[in-house]
Amino acid sequence: MLRQAVFHKSDIPFAYPLNRDELHIVLKAASHDIKRAYVFYRDRYEWKSKFKVKQMYLSHSDELFDYFETTLKLKKKFAYYFYLVSRDGEKLYYTESGFFDVKLPANYYGYFQFPYICEKDIFFSPSWTNDCIIYQIFPERFFNGDKSNDPDNVAIWGEKPGVDTFFGGDLQGIIDKIDYLKDLGINAIYLTPIFLSPTNHKYNTTDYYTIDPHFGDLETAKTLVKKCHENGIKVIFDAVFNHCGYEFFAFQDVVKNGRNSKYWDWFNIYDYPIKTGDECNYEVFSDHEWRMPKLMTKNPEVKKYLLDVAKYWLQEVDIDGWRLDVANEIDHSFWRDFRETVKSVKPDAIIIGEVMHDASPWLRGDQFDGVMNYPFKNALTEFFAKRSISASKFNTILTENLMRHMKKVNECMLNLIDSHDTERFLTMADENISRMKLAVVFQFTYPGIPYIYYGDEVGMIGGVDPDCRRCMIWDENNQNKDIYNFYKKLISIRKNSEELRYGDIKTLYAKDSVIAFERRYGHKITTIVINNSDRSLKVPSQYFKNKEEILDMSSYQLDDKYAILEPNSAYILK
Amino acid sequence: MLRQAVFHKSDIPFAYPLNRDELHIVLKAASHDIKRAYVFYRDRYEWKSKFKVKQMYLSHSDELFDYFETTLKLKKKFAYYFYLVSRDGEKLYYTESGFFDVKLPANYYGYFQFPYICEKDIFFSPSWTNDCIIYQIFPERFFNGDKSNDPDNVAIWGEKPGVDTFFGGDLQGIIDKIDYLKDLGINAIYLTPIFLSPTNHKYNTTDYYTIDPHFGDLETAKTLVKKCHENGIKVIFDAVFNHCGYEFFAFQDVVKNGRNSKYWDWFNIYDYPIKTGDECNYEVFSDHEWRMPKLMTKNPEVKKYLLDVAKYWLQEVDIDGWRLDVANEIDHSFWRDFRETVKSVKPDAIIIGEVMHDASPWLRGDQFDGVMNYPFKNALTEFFAKRSISASKFNTILTENLMRHMKKVNECMLNLIDSHDTERFLTMADENISRMKLAVVFQFTYPGIPYIYYGDEVGMIGGVDPDCRRCMIWDENNQNKDIYNFYKKLISIRKNSEELRYGDIKTLYAKDSVIAFERRYGHKITTIVINNSDRSLKVPSQYFKNKEEILDMSSYQLDDKYAILEPNSAYILK
Repeated sequence: MLRQAVFHKSDIPFAYPLNRDELHIVLKAASHDIKRAYVFYRDRYEWKSKFKVKQMYLSHSDELFDYFETTLKLKKKFAYYFYLVSRDGEKLYYTESGFFDVKLPANYYGYFQFPYICEKDIFFSPSWTNDCIIYQIFPERFFNGDKSNDPDNVAIWGEKPGVDTFFGGDLQGIIDKIDYLKDLGINAIYLTPIFLSPTNHKYNTTDYYTIDPHFGDLETAKTLVKKCHENGIKVIFDAVFNHCGYEFFAFQDVVKNGRNSKYWDWFNIYDYPIKTGDECNYEVFSDHEWRMPKLMTKNPEVKKYLLDVAKYWLQEVDIDGWRLDVANEIDHSFWRDFRETVKSVKPDAIIIGEVMHDASPWLRGDQFDGVMNYPFKNALTEFFAKRSISASKFNTILTENLMRHMKKVNECMLNLIDSHDTERFLTMADENISRMKLAVVFQFTYPGIPYIYYGDEVGMIGGVDPDCRRCMIWDENNQNKDIYNFYKKLISIRKNSEELRYGDIKTLYAKDSVIAFERRYGHKITTIVINNSDRSLKVPSQYFKNKEEILDMSSYQLDDKYAILEPNSAYILK
Repeated sequence: MLRQAVFHKSDIPFAYPLNRDELHIVLKAASHDIKRAYVFYRDRYEWKSKFKVKQMYLSHSDELFDYFETTLKLKKKFAYYFYLVSRDGEKLYYTESGFFDVKLPANYYGYFQFPYICEKDIFFSPSWTNDCIIYQIFPERFFNGDKSNDPDNVAIWGEKPGVDTFFGGDLQGIIDKIDYLKDLGINAIYLTPIFLSPTNHKYNTTDYYTIDPHFGDLETAKTLVKKCHENGIKVIFDAVFNHCGYEFFAFQDVVKNGRNSKYWDWFNIYDYPIKTGDECNYEVFSDHEWRMPKLMTKNPEVKKYLLDVAKYWLQEVDIDGWRLDVANEIDHSFWRDFRETVKSVKPDAIIIGEVMHDASPWLRGDQFDGVMNYPFKNALTEFFAKRSISASKFNTILTENLMRHMKKVNECMLNLIDSHDTERFLTMADENISRMKLAVVFQFTYPGIPYIYYGDEVGMIGGVDPDCRRCMIWDENNQNKDIYNFYKKLISIRKNSEELRYGDIKTLYAKDSVIAFERRYGHKITTIVINNSDRSLKVPSQYFKNKEEILDMSSYQLDDKYAILEPNSAYILK
C-alpha cells in the first residue's frame, strides 16, 4: 500500500466535531489502493474500555486519492484512535507516529487523539444556509427606481458601460423588482457596496455610515430590507474593510494634517505630505492608480471602527450577513473578532469572504461561514464553458476543493459561475446556451449555495469588467425566457429536494465528458448525469433504471447495460 | 514521480511569513523521488513582472518523505507561485489546481497564492527562547526551606512517596537553591502549581489568587521571582485552567446553593444537589474519583476570571510565562484571548501548552509559543532508553514532528525526556547511565528548549507517579556527580554555540543504531554523531574529518573512508 498517500491529522478538515458528542473523521489514501479502512477508537478517559471498531465508507475518489469517512459517537468527548487499512493479503496499522505491521498495545501513546469536543470550537452555519439561493445585484445596473436621485449625465439604460459610466440604478429599483425576484424563486440577495463613494462600483468607500445618495438613504435601505424580509428574501451587504476610498474622512484628515493627524496610524504612510500618482507614498490596495489606502486592521482603533460599522448595519437595518471584500488581505485576528461581533448581534447572520484561491485558512470555523467559491467557478468555466478539461480532471479539482473543508462549510459556499469581477458565463461559453444550462444544472445540484449574477437568468452576456456590469435587461422581448424558465425549474427542483440541499455527494462517473454524481440524504437519493459534449455518449444503465427523470431537459435511451445520453444533455433522476 | 506524495498548501506549516517581507515555503515529496525542486513566484499585484525562479534546498529526508524549502523575498507581500519538480528526463508543474505537464500562462488563476503578509499574523516567539534551558521543579519535593510552614505529619525527606505524602518542600527551598541552579547553568525554572490546594501536586486549585501556605505566601513568591531574575533565571508558573479543585469557591457555592448559585453555569452540572463518587453528577476532568470540576471556558465570566488570574501573576509577581495544564481540552478561542492578554501585559512572556500528541492546531502562531514536546520525549524513550526502534524510524518520527510546525515554534518546544507525569528517564533506560547520556546529548543539541526534570541531573530514578516525584537528593554522596558534570558540560556547549541555539537542523545519517545530524547557522556548523548501541559501528569519515570533537565523551578511529565509533558513544564536532 502506498504509505506516502495515506494521511490523517486530528484537525480540520480531517477531524472535526459535528456536535458535542460526535466526531467526524476523514482518511486519505491513494486512489484504488486500499480495499477496506477501519478505525479503532475509544474515549480517552475510559481507561478500561476496549477499542471499538468501525468500518469507514469510501466517500470520494478522484484521479489521485480515495477518501474514507465515518462519524464517531463519543461518550467523554475525547477520542483516542488509530486506523487499519487493508487490501488482499496485506494490512497496515496507521497511527500519529506512523505505520506498523502489527497491532500496538492498548495504552500506546502514539495514537491519534482528538482531545475533548469544546462547544465553543464547533462550527455552526446559519440555519437558513442549506435552503438558500443567492442573487447578486450590482445596484447601479439593476434598475433605476428613483430618477430623482440620479447622478448627472446618466447614460441611457442599456448602453455599453465604460469604466466611469453611471446609469442610475438604485435601491428603490431593487424594491420595485422584488416581485421579479420572488417569481424567479431566489431567497437572498447580495448587493455590491452601497455606501457613499464617487464610483459606480463603490468599492472605494467615502463614508461607511451613509448610503450613497444616488442609491437612496437610510430609510430606503430599511425599506428594502423590510420588504425583502416580508417576501422571504435575506439581504447581504458588502463590507470593504481592506481599504477605503481616497475621500474617506480619516485619510482626508491625514492628507490635511500629515503626521499631526490623529488618524496617521490608521494607514501605512511612508512620508509626508501625502502624494498620489507615480509618487504615491502610502500603502494602497492593488494598483496605486486607484489611490485606495490600505486600512491597518492591526490598529485597535481601526478594528473598533470597522467592527462598529459591521454591527451598525446589522442592528440598524437588520441585514442578514456580510460579504467581505478582499478578505484574504486582512489578518485572521481581525476576522475572528469580526465573527464574534457579528454572531453576537445576529447569531444567524452569514459571513462570506472573498478569497479567490484555497480559502481553508479562513474556513476553520473561527472566521467565515463560507467564501465566494472561485475554485468551483474556475472548474465549471474550464469544463462546461471552455471544455478544456476532462470530466476526470474536473472531478479531481472539485473533490480536492471539497475535501479542504468541513462538510458544513461546503454547504455555505457561494457557488458562483461568474460575478461582477469576471466575464459573464455565457460569454465564456461562446454564447452557447446549452453549455451554460449544463453548468447551471451542476451548480443547482451541487452542495453549497447556488448563486445567480443578475441577468444571467435572462441570458445576459458581457466581457471583462466593465462589460460584465451591463444594465439589467428588463424588456421582456430581449430577455431569454428559455434560460429564465430553466433557472426557475432548477430552483424549484432544489427547493423540493432535501437531498440536494442537505445530502452528501458522491461522484459516480467521471470519464470522457460525462460527470455523474448522487446526492444522498438518509434514504433519499437523487442522481445527476451530465453529458458535456456534442456527441451521444453511453453510461452504465444503473443510474437511470427504475428512476424518474425530473429535469425534463433531454431524453435518453435505455437498455440492460447502458443508457445512451443525448449530446449536451443533463438528467436529474429520483 | 509520485504525485500523491507531492504536497504544498499555502498555509502553516507549508507557507508562513518570517517577517513583513519574507515568506517561507515548504514542499513535500516522496523520499528520493525528486531530484530538483524549483519555485516560480511573483508578487500578486506586480501584474507585468515576470516570474522569478528559485531552486529549493532539500531540508529534511526520512523513510517516507523529502522536504524542500526556501524563503521568498516579496515586494508587495502577496505571493503568486507554483512549483516545478524534476528528475532525470521527467518534469512536472505543481499548482493549487493540481499537476500539469506543461507550463501554464502567467495569468493562470490556479497557482498557489499567499495573500498579503499581515503583521498581526506573523508569529514571534519570546526573545530569550533560543538561549533558554529549563529546569522543572515539583516544589513539594525540591527543598524544604522553611520548616515553619510544613503540613502536619510530613514524611522524612527521601522516603518513598505515596500518593498523598507530604515532605515540606516550598518556595523558600527554591530560593535557597538558586546558587545550585546557577552552578548547573539553567536559566529558567518551571514550577508545577503553587496555588492553594489540598494535594501535594496542587493540580486541584482551591484559590488561584493565593500561594499555598505550605509553600509560602505572596511575598515569598515575589522574592523567589526577584532573586531568580537577579540571577538570570526566568520563572514560569503552571496555569490549571481546564478544571479546578472541588474546594474552589465557585464550585463550593454551587454545592451549597445548587441552581440558585450565581456560579452554576461556570460548570457543567447535570442535576442538583451536587453528588460525588459513583453518583457524580457534574462534568469532571478525567476520572470522577478526583472530583475536579471542568471549568466552562465558553462562559465569558469564567474566561474573564481566568484571564484576570493570568494577568495578575504576570503583573504582581513578574513571572515570565505560563505553562498550561491540559491545554488541549480548552477551546481555541479561549487560548487566543489568553495569548492576547498575556502578550499585552508582558510581550516577552512565554506560553507553553501541555499537549501530549500532535499539537499543531494550537501552534499556528495564534495560541501557544510551544508545547511540552511529548512526541519528542516518546521517540527518545523508544530509541535511547528502550532501544526498541531503529535510527531510521527515530529520524522519521522526529522529522514528521518537526515538519508540523513553523521553525520558530520548534525553537519554543520544551524538549523533555521525562516529567512529573512519566517514569524517570533513567528508570526507563534500566538505570543504564550511558543510554541516558546519549539521550541528553541529543536533547541538548536538538532545536528547541532543553528541559531538565529536577533531579535527573544527579541520577534520580523513579517509576510512574508518585514514584517519579521523589524528594530531590541533596546529599552530595548520593548525587551522581558524573551525570551532573555531563549536564554542565552540555549546557556550556549549547550556551557557547550559536548553531545549537539558532541553527537549522539536517539529518546526515540514520541507519542501524547511529543518528548523525548537523546544526547550521550561517557559516557555522556543528555535527553530532551518536552510536546508540553496545557495538562499535562505522560511519562515513566526513563527519569527523578536519573537525574538533568538543564533547570529550568517547573516542573514535578515523581512516580515509570511515570513522569507527565506540559502543554507546556521542560526539559533538565543530
